[in-house]
Amino acid sequence: MPIITLTTDFGTTDHFAGVLKGVILSIAPKATVVDITHEVPPYSVGEGAFIASQTYPYYPPRSIHVVVVDPGVGTTRRPILVEAAGQFFIGPDNGVLALIYSREKSKVRHITNEKLFLKNPSATFHGRDIFAPVAAHLAAGVAPAKAGPLINDYLRPAIEKPVRTGHRVWTGTILKIDRFGNCITSFHIDEFPAVRERPFVMIPGVAKVTRLINNYAEAPFGEPSVIIGSSGYLEVVANQGHAAKVLGVGTGAPVELSIY
Amino acid sequence: MPIITLTTDFGTTDHFAGVLKGVILSIAPKATVVDITHEVPPYSVGEGAFIASQTYPYYPPRSIHVVVVDPGVGTTRRPILVEAAGQFFIGPDNGVLALIYSREKSKVRHITNEKLFLKNPSATFHGRDIFAPVAAHLAAGVAPAKAGPLINDYLRPAIEKPVRTGHRVWTGTILKIDRFGNCITSFHIDEFPAVRERPFVMIPGVAKVTRLINNYAEAPFGEPSVIIGSSGYLEVVANQGHAAKVLGVGTGAPVELSIY
Amino acid sequence: MPIITLTTDFGTTDHFAGVLKGVILSIAPKATVVDITHEVPPYSVGEGAFIASQTYPYYPPRSIHVVVVDPGVGTTRRPILVEAAGQFFIGPDNGVLALIYSREKSKVRHITNEKLFLKNPSATFHGRDIFAPVAAHLAAGVAPAKAGPLINDYLRPAIEKPVRTGHRVWTGTILKIDRFGNCITSFHIDEFPAVRERPFVMIPGVAKVTRLINNYAEAPFGEPSVIIGSSGYLEVVANQGHAAKVLGVGTGAPVELSIY
Repeated sequence: MPIITLTTDFGTTDHFAGVLKGVILSIAPKATVVDITHEVPPYSVGEGAFIASQTYPYYPPRSIHVVVVDPGVGTTRRPILVEAAGQFFIGPDNGVLALIYSREKSKVRHITNEKLFLKNPSATFHGRDIFAPVAAHLAAGVAPAKAGPLINDYLRPAIEKPVRTGHRVWTGTILKIDRFGNCITSFHIDEFPAVRERPFVMIPGVAKVTRLINNYAEAPFGEPSVIIGSSGYLEVVANQGHAAKVLGVGTGAPVELSIY
Repeated sequence: MPIITLTTDFGTTDHFAGVLKGVILSIAPKATVVDITHEVPPYSVGEGAFIASQTYPYYPPRSIHVVVVDPGVGTTRRPILVEAAGQFFIGPDNGVLALIYSREKSKVRHITNEKLFLKNPSATFHGRDIFAPVAAHLAAGVAPAKAGPLINDYLRPAIEKPVRTGHRVWTGTILKIDRFGNCITSFHIDEFPAVRERPFVMIPGVAKVTRLINNYAEAPFGEPSVIIGSSGYLEVVANQGHAAKVLGVGTGAPVELSIY
Repeated sequence: MPIITLTTDFGTTDHFAGVLKGVILSIAPKATVVDITHEVPPYSVGEGAFIASQTYPYYPPRSIHVVVVDPGVGTTRRPILVEAAGQFFIGPDNGVLALIYSREKSKVRHITNEKLFLKNPSATFHGRDIFAPVAAHLAAGVAPAKAGPLINDYLRPAIEKPVRTGHRVWTGTILKIDRFGNCITSFHIDEFPAVRERPFVMIPGVAKVTRLINNYAEAPFGEPSVIIGSSGYLEVVANQGHAAKVLGVGTGAPVELSIY
């Protein structure tokens, strides 16, 4: 029973996500289709990439992840299949899979085999016509090599890592505001372990945050604090408050970190 | 493994959709339940009908589609079962299935067999008490004819087709604004193939749109253009912009098309 | 094929819900995972409890319900497993399962067996690290008793029942505003059957509502009425209108009921 997950910006108010599932179940009736999210903000390739990168580590081998945030649908941007970490990733070659192949040993294929597509693919809905059916054919047993040739010139966007800007100062960014208003920064505890032991100042926007807490409930009500999030990234949080609103920051905002 | 899809206006913040799935899995444990959407705007029979009509062509034979947008629940409006295109459709007789039986050769039954309902059906939640259990019994092998007698007097609302209003002028409507702000019009490329080859002016609201593009990325930023959508309907779109907001139009707004 | 349902406040814009499903399918590949909702308002233990209580009666025996609304994650609040009504419920001991064990004969266990957790559980995401994997191990055949010891000191919050405040006057509350704006009150028809036969005045906020209707369509447009909802609770509704907005009330608002 192969698993096919769906991560898209299609929303849940239209027929788009439902159509994808129909296409998949028509080709691979035994597949287990899992909605990750269809609420990636429209055209937000970066947020789609982040969600895909946070999800696959918890899926079993041979899972197939369809990731479609695709403002360039119908242009010359290529559909690709990434084999990495014992799993499969299918989406456009626009960076939405970049956090997979920048992190894992990967084989990347240009999907060219039209036999695996729906007939007469449209120029506007490759999720339906290319990505979903290719995923379903993989689930039904087609070998990955049948999808198309290996390529090396897939898009490698700059991955947003914190940059050193002073003696003990780095500038990073907010990768994502989550549902609770927590600000997930690009500072990962594996790269900045010193925040566990030494005084620091983190500045998202204009406010200075200096407190490291162990769980959300430890935060004073409304006062922003830093926590080591469940992904390992440092997050700025407010106990039962919406940190992003309190701080007036959004995705992409710069964050300065000084460790003393 | 029969498939049961759900298209409703129940939203996702309540227990309603979860209850439907429990009812189905209690009766038909092997059914694959697929959420199409629960975000049809409350009471919007027309939008529910549109989504149902866009989805089933991509589902395998014998799929069962439950479509519940039902402001008249508990009144004399009848529950119906439609057999069409090798699939099954279950919902109220209020037009929400009209785009199925207006398009496909159909048998329509009045669902009367109370043995297929939950006991003591409420007057307020037929999704739970009638539509979901009937779908589940079908999935579990009950013959469609057991649901109730064939009828011919089901609701046949006027289907919104463009009307000719001048020499080369037609007036249609906006069927739906999708998640991206694209305005799906009632002009279908099969009926208006001339837009591919001849100059035209489409007027949704007050703006004139004259450009036909092949994919979303071809549109100049923010300037509305016409595209042949993935359903075959002409759509007014704006590259990475929200065309409906740019144009100030909504579902049901008139659209004039002149072809020269 | 055991069923695992998910009721959380994780939202659908992040990777959280998708991660839960991956954890479950990695441990119990044959489980059927059902989304009830991930849209419980953030930290709203009461609303999560209400949704859980409304859903399980429609699920088959041995279903496993994961209910995670957990502002105290990472503190000393305990993870618990409730066996009740032939089903299983897993969540934090913060009241989110209280409507189960206040209503059904129950066994409650403190989940202590770390062998059933993901390795190195975080302090911020017990849904992923504890609740989902324990549910999956149960689904895969682990005996409930392996989860941990029976306890009796689990949280028993006051359940909001109407209080008698006069000769024939009771004060209750609004348990939930549903998607349609219907105000679900804490008055249950089994406890207040007299509203079927005798004049009454219900006052949610300041408006007096005196009409009992049989179905939504019977309500005069926009004028609030009382209906016996599908759960048995009296609801204040407005035909195709949003009763809560019309009345200016929200969850938790007091409701007075006088029966004459």
